[in-house]
Amino acid sequence: MEKRKKPVILVTNDDGYKAKGLQALIEALQPFGSLVVLSPSQPHSGMSHAITVNVPLRMDKIEEKEDFVFYMVSGTPVDCVKLANNQLFKDHKPDLLVSGINHGANSSSSIVYSGTMAAVIEGCLYEIPAIGFSLLDFSKQADFSTAISYIRIIVENVLTKGLKPGTCLNVNIPKLSFDQIKGIRICRQNKGVWREEFDKRVDPNNREYYWLTGEFHDLEPDAEDTDEWALHHHYVSIVPVQIDLTDYASLEKLKGWEWKIKK
Amino acid sequence: MEKRKKPVILVTNDDGYKAKGLQALIEALQPFGSLVVLSPSQPHSGMSHAITVNVPLRMDKIEEKEDFVFYMVSGTPVDCVKLANNQLFKDHKPDLLVSGINHGANSSSSIVYSGTMAAVIEGCLYEIPAIGFSLLDFSKQADFSTAISYIRIIVENVLTKGLKPGTCLNVNIPKLSFDQIKGIRICRQNKGVWREEFDKRVDPNNREYYWLTGEFHDLEPDAEDTDEWALHHHYVSIVPVQIDLTDYASLEKLKGWEWKIKK
Repeated sequence: MEKRKKPVILVTNDDGYKAKGLQALIEALQPFGSLVVLSPSQPHSGMSHAITVNVPLRMDKIEEKEDFVFYMVSGTPVDCVKLANNQLFKDHKPDLLVSGINHGANSSSSIVYSGTMAAVIEGCLYEIPAIGFSLLDFSKQADFSTAISYIRIIVENVLTKGLKPGTCLNVNIPKLSFDQIKGIRICRQNKGVWREEFDKRVDPNNREYYWLTGEFHDLEPDAEDTDEWALHHHYVSIVPVQIDLTDYASLEKLKGWEWKIKK
Repeated sequence: MEKRKKPVILVTNDDGYKAKGLQALIEALQPFGSLVVLSPSQPHSGMSHAITVNVPLRMDKIEEKEDFVFYMVSGTPVDCVKLANNQLFKDHKPDLLVSGINHGANSSSSIVYSGTMAAVIEGCLYEIPAIGFSLLDFSKQADFSTAISYIRIIVENVLTKGLKPGTCLNVNIPKLSFDQIKGIRICRQNKGVWREEFDKRVDPNNREYYWLTGEFHDLEPDAEDTDEWALHHHYVSIVPVQIDLTDYASLEKLKGWEWKIKK
């Protein structure tokens, strides 16, 4: 019997190459295959799907050993995925892309601001099976030990069973001990928004300025099938995310509107 | 009969407050109501849904007249929407949010990199009817005169008939004269990707660096219901875009996987 080829896993994050969450992700993934890590030289929280078009990018190899190579990239998480696909995986694709572990939640509508999930969606556009992991703990010293067990069962499932092209996974993990977590729930994306409260201040030259702050509001706290509900009830949440944003339900309705320009 | 209140329209863009496309959008919208314009002080192409969290924001009023106020904001298009909603529309909402006119296409998967559409999606999260307009012409001196006619019929439709909460519109307009355009088509988002070709160079200190470049590849050129097809065939494309990214088709399938951790 032919020996099965080791999977090649592309790893990235948006908290930067020094983040504890990235180290935990590497630890979780090492048993599965050969890792190619590209991580931003700076944290990129809130950068979403930003790409670097106006300045050149740098990519520096900072570590290499058996089944492991680590690059630091001067751009965003999406830049990392683009550089990896173009410069390192020229005529093949990685078997899996994993992004995280993010320090802080990316559940509900927060996905649109998330650099962690932007890297996942970028991989998904190129039909690489892709998963993003976030822990609900913003602390730089967060404890990722429980997350590692959940990452491993999710990665094992995806490597074995695959994902539908055009669909990726958004995984959030509550800030709880292993014994407190009740298990995994497959969920839909919760309806929720950040209510921004800008902190308005006046500088020494008497000009106003604003700091963005704010808090998350769950708009459907009683719906039991959402990621927010799962997290509040001590479950790990998995949302299957699609990259086709078309609202098919609205297509036919809009076709019935009057679109002719009266000259 | 009571006089109908004038609609209040929030206007933003991602090419910056000096862009010709923004001036054209203002011209298109002025007959419809009272305009509140917040535009970035710098162009933000490729910034997607980025928000400014690590530096304070400035917001300077640069023009005010009847039914028109214009602010320059030091952040991204999404920052503009957040600042407007929080500082200018405290206890009410604008009747419509319009973003653009972007210099260059935001069709197919390009929507994920688009600051223009990120502002639209941000409005949609807060249940403001929202539309993004893009012209397929990157030139700073692009001719927006034909776009104005199409913007007006689309805005008139949306102000009259409304949009489903959670759904916004992505409109792309071909670079053609009024007589060459065949009309409007309601479309789904095309499957396509940017094939990145990084331009690898060596700096004077002998270090390598990379410029992001690349070209768009349509992965389903024969599908007649996509935005790319419509644009190639001289139509204005409208894609209804939803902010719920859940892939509902995958939910049940994923529930059937084995998720128990063997200790």
